[in-house]
Amino acid sequence: MSTYTTSELNQVKRGAKRAVYDVEQINNILDAGFVGYVGYNYNGKAICLPMAYGRIDNKIYLHGSLKNRMLLALLEAKEASMTIMHLDALILARSGFHHSVNYRSATLFTSITKVENRAEKEAALKCVVDHMIPGRWDTLRPMNLKEFNGTLVLEMEIQTASAKIRDVGVLDEKSDLDLPIWAGVIPIRQVAKLPVKDPLLPKQIRTPKHVVLYYKKNKA
Amino acid sequence: MSTYTTSELNQVKRGAKRAVYDVEQINNILDAGFVGYVGYNYNGKAICLPMAYGRIDNKIYLHGSLKNRMLLALLEAKEASMTIMHLDALILARSGFHHSVNYRSATLFTSITKVENRAEKEAALKCVVDHMIPGRWDTLRPMNLKEFNGTLVLEMEIQTASAKIRDVGVLDEKSDLDLPIWAGVIPIRQVAKLPVKDPLLPKQIRTPKHVVLYYKKNKA
Repeated sequence: MSTYTTSELNQVKRGAKRAVYDVEQINNILDAGFVGYVGYNYNGKAICLPMAYGRIDNKIYLHGSLKNRMLLALLEAKEASMTIMHLDALILARSGFHHSVNYRSATLFTSITKVENRAEKEAALKCVVDHMIPGRWDTLRPMNLKEFNGTLVLEMEIQTASAKIRDVGVLDEKSDLDLPIWAGVIPIRQVAKLPVKDPLLPKQIRTPKHVVLYYKKNKA
Repeated sequence: MSTYTTSELNQVKRGAKRAVYDVEQINNILDAGFVGYVGYNYNGKAICLPMAYGRIDNKIYLHGSLKNRMLLALLEAKEASMTIMHLDALILARSGFHHSVNYRSATLFTSITKVENRAEKEAALKCVVDHMIPGRWDTLRPMNLKEFNGTLVLEMEIQTASAKIRDVGVLDEKSDLDLPIWAGVIPIRQVAKLPVKDPLLPKQIRTPKHVVLYYKKNKA
């Protein structure tokens, strides 16, 4: 079991008992989603934007247009941070103060480099698509040179990271427990609805296994 | 219908045809969630963290501990930006290049001030709780002075904003339409599961109307 080294940068201060530095647990959080929030500096302002990502080992891949303002700013800064959060439940306590949510959240601090090597760039783009829906890439029309050359791919190598996980019920003051106030947990899930085929799809093409599997795994 | 003024800061460059500056549409995006990603600078690094928020008119409220590193950094910077995104669908195209998602995303650029006035602070905290689940605050044990004084509340007044909305189907190259590749849309929803009452709840307390309503509105 390996863990990320803690420093001023990634050490969780608020709610430290919920802090996680374990690499495998953090990878599980990363692999449970495919949209992360990436922070960048624009004229001294910290802006964050949602980005699709994929992961291979300790590397995260982003992609976008060659002119993407955020990607170019990250490349210039040579470093980035990204946060991913999954909301798991609303925690409805007897006081406003103890209202909370259950969640799994990870924040990564990474270096940034541009992926130029053709094989690595293709592997990164495959990884981003397959991260969204496993097994998709190999069923697709291969990239052409125009698409390939028109796409900027960045590699974020994780330098350090931290996560926070809350997965317990209502934690109220003892003195509040007898109050006539309902308290409890409302679980929250992100689910997939039935896939809808493109109206232009030739009639004989059936829903492929990877789409059926994705739906079965993610339906309500 | 009012719209936010565009400048270098908030003008959407990539995918400009999906850009939205309309105040009402942006408010709808804000009101469809209660967790936003707030960017801040820490030693020159742009970090973003998920925060619960509430909205009253053009003001967003955040809260946290008096020692919260991010909130204190925002207060010092006197400005902030926040991004909220709702994922609505996976767009599975015939090429990797045209894979996409449907989403509603808003990025706000705001001033930051500390809320000190007692009535305003209480209104802000009520707004945050009711933003998570409408009608909750008035059923709760009122805040005590210790909780009240131990909570830092920041007001983010929206100076400008932009949003992006994608809500269409697969957009493939014409030359790819006859390929034997499945293409389509997988709708994604965030849903609530059945509320689970706190095991310590006195038996006679029934699930209140606001919890039932939330569940009915958000169930799969």
